[in-house]
Amino acid sequence: MISTSLMDEFRSIVGNEWFLDTPEDLATYSYDGFLPEFRPDAVIVPGKTDEISKIMGVANRERVNIIPRGAGTNISGTSVARKGGVIMAFHRMNKILEIDPENMCAVVQPGVVNADLQKEVARYGLMYPPDPASMYVSTIGGNVALNAGGPRGVKYGATKDYLLGLKVVLPSGDLIKTGGKTFKNVSGYDLTRLMCGSEGTLGIFTEITVRLVPLPPAKATLQAIYSDLDDAAKTVSAIIGSGIVPTTLELIDRVVLDVIRDYGGAEFSRKAEALLLIEVDGEEVSVLTQGERIEKFCREKGAIEVQRATSPDEAEKLWQARRSAFGAVASVRPSCVVEDATVPVKRLPDIIRKILELSDKYRVQIGILAHAGDGNLHPIFMTDLRDKEEMARIDKAMEEMYEAAISMGGTLSGEHGIGIAKDRFMPMEFTGTAIELMRRIKRVFDPNNILNPGSFL
Amino acid sequence: MISTSLMDEFRSIVGNEWFLDTPEDLATYSYDGFLPEFRPDAVIVPGKTDEISKIMGVANRERVNIIPRGAGTNISGTSVARKGGVIMAFHRMNKILEIDPENMCAVVQPGVVNADLQKEVARYGLMYPPDPASMYVSTIGGNVALNAGGPRGVKYGATKDYLLGLKVVLPSGDLIKTGGKTFKNVSGYDLTRLMCGSEGTLGIFTEITVRLVPLPPAKATLQAIYSDLDDAAKTVSAIIGSGIVPTTLELIDRVVLDVIRDYGGAEFSRKAEALLLIEVDGEEVSVLTQGERIEKFCREKGAIEVQRATSPDEAEKLWQARRSAFGAVASVRPSCVVEDATVPVKRLPDIIRKILELSDKYRVQIGILAHAGDGNLHPIFMTDLRDKEEMARIDKAMEEMYEAAISMGGTLSGEHGIGIAKDRFMPMEFTGTAIELMRRIKRVFDPNNILNPGSFL
Repeated sequence: MISTSLMDEFRSIVGNEWFLDTPEDLATYSYDGFLPEFRPDAVIVPGKTDEISKIMGVANRERVNIIPRGAGTNISGTSVARKGGVIMAFHRMNKILEIDPENMCAVVQPGVVNADLQKEVARYGLMYPPDPASMYVSTIGGNVALNAGGPRGVKYGATKDYLLGLKVVLPSGDLIKTGGKTFKNVSGYDLTRLMCGSEGTLGIFTEITVRLVPLPPAKATLQAIYSDLDDAAKTVSAIIGSGIVPTTLELIDRVVLDVIRDYGGAEFSRKAEALLLIEVDGEEVSVLTQGERIEKFCREKGAIEVQRATSPDEAEKLWQARRSAFGAVASVRPSCVVEDATVPVKRLPDIIRKILELSDKYRVQIGILAHAGDGNLHPIFMTDLRDKEEMARIDKAMEEMYEAAISMGGTLSGEHGIGIAKDRFMPMEFTGTAIELMRRIKRVFDPNNILNPGSFL
Repeated sequence: MISTSLMDEFRSIVGNEWFLDTPEDLATYSYDGFLPEFRPDAVIVPGKTDEISKIMGVANRERVNIIPRGAGTNISGTSVARKGGVIMAFHRMNKILEIDPENMCAVVQPGVVNADLQKEVARYGLMYPPDPASMYVSTIGGNVALNAGGPRGVKYGATKDYLLGLKVVLPSGDLIKTGGKTFKNVSGYDLTRLMCGSEGTLGIFTEITVRLVPLPPAKATLQAIYSDLDDAAKTVSAIIGSGIVPTTLELIDRVVLDVIRDYGGAEFSRKAEALLLIEVDGEEVSVLTQGERIEKFCREKGAIEVQRATSPDEAEKLWQARRSAFGAVASVRPSCVVEDATVPVKRLPDIIRKILELSDKYRVQIGILAHAGDGNLHPIFMTDLRDKEEMARIDKAMEEMYEAAISMGGTLSGEHGIGIAKDRFMPMEFTGTAIELMRRIKRVFDPNNILNPGSFL
């Protein structure tokens, strides 16, 4: 608990209206996209870097936990006050400070919503590639903290690949600058990249410089339906082996397809065991030929139905199944746990088979969405949080799934982060020595362990 | 100095023939691509990871400095025994352990030469994009330690963009594994990226997993000559602003052109003030139209001569000027110092003008090669190391150049690293707080400061 006089000190930094501690406010900030709830002691909403420095100075002196939070869409529990403390929210710091088309970059405050940046840079013929499913809500600050990916990752990579520079307030209140507007920078240790994906545990980003790329002039979108999952996997291999780098290569399995159909999200054959949604972008001429080649691969590998969009409207329709997936799944049971196992791309069929096996073994309903092009799976456990017995079975299934993913050369998290969702699995992927190194790096930045101390370390 | 018994202990780990301490050996390993010489106490050449662990165990116990060294081509003095100690060389660990075309990656030992990897993966229709000028000699281990870039960086980025995972022996002798074969991985802090560009100060890479991309089926190469540097800069802006992402966009200034002509490296107009070498790659159809568009930009912006290669042989000819540049420059004076100032791309003409001004002011001969597409300059100071008075002027010119680059939002190093060449300039780019963080990170990995202790920290 934080004393009244300390509360007043925080209040005086940001002004009364930006220090929240009513029960309603605390309830609002007690959960994020992950499930467990932890009530914070207060919520503080700074308006500028200088205020953040002051807040951190006080917090560090008084050992008050500070938990930075963007839109709270993360599904790893990275933005909740697991060990109590004050949530720091960034919705006041939501300005695009600069779009610099000649240097192909933008400078933004942490609270800028990803889709707002996308929209603004598109006016200059530019694109900010990272496109997490949460992009219409989630913030660039949160995206950097989680190193967010998205469907376009196959071709374009993740947030780290577009992060050029940061201004960071350290737990001490000191401000540092890392990187800048240059695409290349090898001066000193790469603190910019170390911050990316650090889940709010090392510093608070107050200014973020991101790289932009030319908006591709053309796009082709295809949907292929398979009556056999292996045929879909063979198509993925054929496309990747052909030298085509698709922008997007999404897979939806039978469980999710059935749910989408029942939900009325989209219509497809009862025989559908898997759906591939494939997109390529680039110059018009090459997109056209790539689209034709991909269609041929789909048919050769046994797709029972292939559609190729010839207009943006048609493309939008093909995206409908994928877009409605989460809503549809959420309608089935009261809760859903979205996981993030990732394997080398050729092991995709193996890990999917393993998950189907676990679904049977533990009698849990698991649907699969996958960024198939980069081996990044999102198994969705449909459940009811209140059903302790079922949750225990899910926990076991999850543990076995991650053991399998790691044994296939994979990782605990492709793009969602570790947070409090998977901290217990860290020893599967890392030796004690590696984890201890991470703990010591944390201590370098945050000797008093006040920044998001409940997170993965 | 290292005691005889300690020498024997090292010798017993690798075998007599791989522990070198004759005066000839020590002389050979006393310098790298940078100029100053420091004689090491010995050279050790491990054959496997296990030996490296043992060597580090002994070195850590006895506080013996270990300086890892690839091919020694770096020009920042990152691989010399500035503070004495033992050079660790990797030419025995030069095996490509695996090329995995389905997962689009390769696993190599640190001593594999970049060009050898390129050649092998090309047999699978794949490419390893980082292409430092040293690629026919330099090793992947060294490339990772320096986060090497190269001409293809405009489109493809640098080493860090292709580094997926590492096995690392820490100064303690412990082995850790970071990353893996998956393209996405956000588990814990990004130790893989922290290692990349760490200049041999944090750990010793014993296995390196790199991402590969499809070898582009087609390429177009153009050369444009300008009688006015600004016209060349305008062409660069026009190309970048057009949405074309060139593979390569190299600029050569008048000083270097004159030297190349005199050297007999290539022939071009006496009026030539700047040369652009431009390459695009990708699918045949788009490469063709992009090549045409680029040719049009060059002519519109005032090029006095444009050549577009229509065959690989012709393309090779156009590369001749660029390829002969370093040899030509080296023939002018006994020594040359190749620098690495980098600015946001639109400031390129400003920094070039500044360098010309400094050349006058300090009466030093400076030629400029630039990766113009990413604002990465290589000013080449032609000099004689033995001429202390001239070297003092060069030092001043260099300092002013870096001050200018930083004030333009640039960095001390785009791709060559800091090493002992530019450690004194670090405070220009970083605050004391940031440098202190780096020092403390170093201590986390290497508490006894035995790994390349002479380097930038």
